Amino acid sequence: MEAEIIAVGTELLLGDILNTNAQFLSRELAQLGINVHFQSVVGDNPERLESVVNLARSRSDLLIFSGGLGPTQDDLTKQTVAHAFGDELRFDEEELDKIRAFFTAWGRTMPENNRRQAYVPVHGRKIENHNGTAPGMIFEDTRAPGKYAVLLPGPPYELKPMFLDTVRPWLAAMTRSALHSETLRVMGVGESHLEEKIGHLLENENPTAALYAKTAEVVIRVTAKADTPEHAKEMCEEYAQKFYAILGDKIYARGEQPIEYATVAALRAAGKTAALAESCTGGLVAKRLTDVPGASAVFGYGACTYSNGIKEKMLGVRHETLEAHGAVSSETAAEMARGVRRVSGADFGIGITGIAGPDGGTDEKPVGTVYMAVADAENTYVQKLVLTGRTRATVRESSAQHAFDMLRRIALGLPQLTAQRFDSEEPAHLREQTTALRDA
Amino acid sequence: MEAEIIAVGTELLLGDILNTNAQFLSRELAQLGINVHFQSVVGDNPERLESVVNLARSRSDLLIFSGGLGPTQDDLTKQTVAHAFGDELRFDEEELDKIRAFFTAWGRTMPENNRRQAYVPVHGRKIENHNGTAPGMIFEDTRAPGKYAVLLPGPPYELKPMFLDTVRPWLAAMTRSALHSETLRVMGVGESHLEEKIGHLLENENPTAALYAKTAEVVIRVTAKADTPEHAKEMCEEYAQKFYAILGDKIYARGEQPIEYATVAALRAAGKTAALAESCTGGLVAKRLTDVPGASAVFGYGACTYSNGIKEKMLGVRHETLEAHGAVSSETAAEMARGVRRVSGADFGIGITGIAGPDGGTDEKPVGTVYMAVADAENTYVQKLVLTGRTRATVRESSAQHAFDMLRRIALGLPQLTAQRFDSEEPAHLREQTTALRDA
Repeated sequence: MEAEIIAVGTELLLGDILNTNAQFLSRELAQLGINVHFQSVVGDNPERLESVVNLARSRSDLLIFSGGLGPTQDDLTKQTVAHAFGDELRFDEEELDKIRAFFTAWGRTMPENNRRQAYVPVHGRKIENHNGTAPGMIFEDTRAPGKYAVLLPGPPYELKPMFLDTVRPWLAAMTRSALHSETLRVMGVGESHLEEKIGHLLENENPTAALYAKTAEVVIRVTAKADTPEHAKEMCEEYAQKFYAILGDKIYARGEQPIEYATVAALRAAGKTAALAESCTGGLVAKRLTDVPGASAVFGYGACTYSNGIKEKMLGVRHETLEAHGAVSSETAAEMARGVRRVSGADFGIGITGIAGPDGGTDEKPVGTVYMAVADAENTYVQKLVLTGRTRATVRESSAQHAFDMLRRIALGLPQLTAQRFDSEEPAHLREQTTALRDA
Repeated sequence: MEAEIIAVGTELLLGDILNTNAQFLSRELAQLGINVHFQSVVGDNPERLESVVNLARSRSDLLIFSGGLGPTQDDLTKQTVAHAFGDELRFDEEELDKIRAFFTAWGRTMPENNRRQAYVPVHGRKIENHNGTAPGMIFEDTRAPGKYAVLLPGPPYELKPMFLDTVRPWLAAMTRSALHSETLRVMGVGESHLEEKIGHLLENENPTAALYAKTAEVVIRVTAKADTPEHAKEMCEEYAQKFYAILGDKIYARGEQPIEYATVAALRAAGKTAALAESCTGGLVAKRLTDVPGASAVFGYGACTYSNGIKEKMLGVRHETLEAHGAVSSETAAEMARGVRRVSGADFGIGITGIAGPDGGTDEKPVGTVYMAVADAENTYVQKLVLTGRTRATVRESSAQHAFDMLRRIALGLPQLTAQRFDSEEPAHLREQTTALRDA
């Protein structure tokens, strides 16, 4: 089956909005094994729309439209497609009731314009829209059965659920396949090392597996195609286990949630609390931690200590430590971690200090040099990151990412991958002993 | 002049990447007064590419291509377009030297594949690429002069400067126009109120002005078209003054930098420092403040105090205040602001406390209720925000935005727009007196 994707909307041609629907639909169709040969965008112009519809109909079996179903858009898309596919539109009282109810639920009366959204195909079928007023629709070409046009509304929060709930299962049934995907999130091993370890698992035909490098983490997407959804899920699960066998606890979670969710979950599971002392990350770690609803159960205090004086005053970092080793050093990171733990009364203290750039780098400590420490009652773990070739923003994001993984591993009682452990009472000479992690 | 935009790349059809080039090019062409009637995406397939090129050539005067110039892509796009436009390709030694030098600068040797990037049009012209190896090119149709094809490489960091530096001036000259744009950033007046005040200025033909609503701010883009760049700039400037006459200091800056840059600049200009006490924003304000390189000159300490106990311990918020008014109250915000000012020794203290959601709202204080305070030696300014219908992330972003504006205005000695002023020594009964800002 060969498909093309057509977006209708002048706002796309003016560059006012980005065509994220095309990416979403393309990816979904690729997963179904349906080839997308063309994407097009056309405005709300009758002749140009008609020429695009006719051309697409002549060269593809499946046309997926986004947009052009709004109440102010004059039914142009529906009518043009209905005409090209030998169908007609009828007024649907049931649909009108739904549209009216949608407005009532928001305490408003329905504008007259919205009536026209109640026109649906005579031969084709409508697709329910739970997040807006415009129903979607599927036309089958009355003169060339097996050729389809699917019309979906433009707003992504309407289009996506309609595609996933209705169009995808329909296409999967037609292509006799059910799909299931699992996303594995990996920290603590760079992309190139990862390819060495699991490259052989990425060559498979079904399930497929693909790597996506993100800031300081890698995401593995496993997708299986089978005759039933249950079977596809089972295949995915079985294949995912091969990754677990190699990567173990470096897979920190499944799904779309970033690592701070796993860290909060690990702290909750351990019944432990954490406090933060941030210098170069400047509140980013606290911000990401508190992005997680319910973070207050495990987090009470984050200190953004952006000057030496404040590090001394708020965290009790010793003046001599700052003098002897500098603010960006493993010694300072360790004292920050211990200090914030002590003043807050939390179970774990985290200290992060580094040079995010663009200025402030030296030969010895270039931009991207970051020291971080986690202290508990007995131990202080310290690691050095050298995040070269990065922007200020990515140095900070990478640092936060590593801090979350360090804390997650400690909360779960897992061994630290690159950090060195020290007795929390014995702070001297940490610098010489820290290991350098060179991150791709 | 009627244009269309054609992206070449299988990765777009697979949904692996988002077509941001189409948006960028569309917006730029719209600014030049050139109508974009179609956008298309096609893969690296000879027949389909040829059909797209021929169709586009038949219906448009200007074809802008992105992608398809990479070393592994077989010259397909160049050859197809050259053929359709009656031109040929020649090998360019000078170009080869540049490509080779590009690799040398990165300490690598040039792969053989890259040689083919040195083929350029015989009749058309090449476009220099300062950020990559593939030159761009402009073909004029030898059989239909006045019809053009512009080929640009796919990576946005190569395409954008090539378009802005070479293609845009060429198109501007051809359409006998020079363009200039100014972006005015506005805080402290909602979008609907803004439309009332300046709606009449948005109807103009040249310069044009458009509003873009962002989180808790609005951006006005003024674009003038003239015979020379100097004249366009002058027209823009003159038109911008009309907005200043109405909005005054609510225009916090020009350009693309967010408000934290203006706040840091205001503090630097005043020679003042600020300290933060954040509850609901959880480090976001500190994070955004330290996104600004050089923020350390005005910022030393940010406390993310996420529990009542920590607010008491670290900021000296009184237990009775928390008991009597709750953590989310103007009294607590005021004591947080004063407390963090006192403990840090900064000139200004900022306190922010609220309910970001998704849980924790009550009838009296629904999700989106936020109190913020700024304290200096004499006064404490307090305002209440009611940010209804938002997500946790937008409640937090809006709060940060308002905190930056409050601080900016105080640092510049401007009057507060919605906050109430209190003597810093007299904290009682603030709540009844705060004004509510209902933000669209």
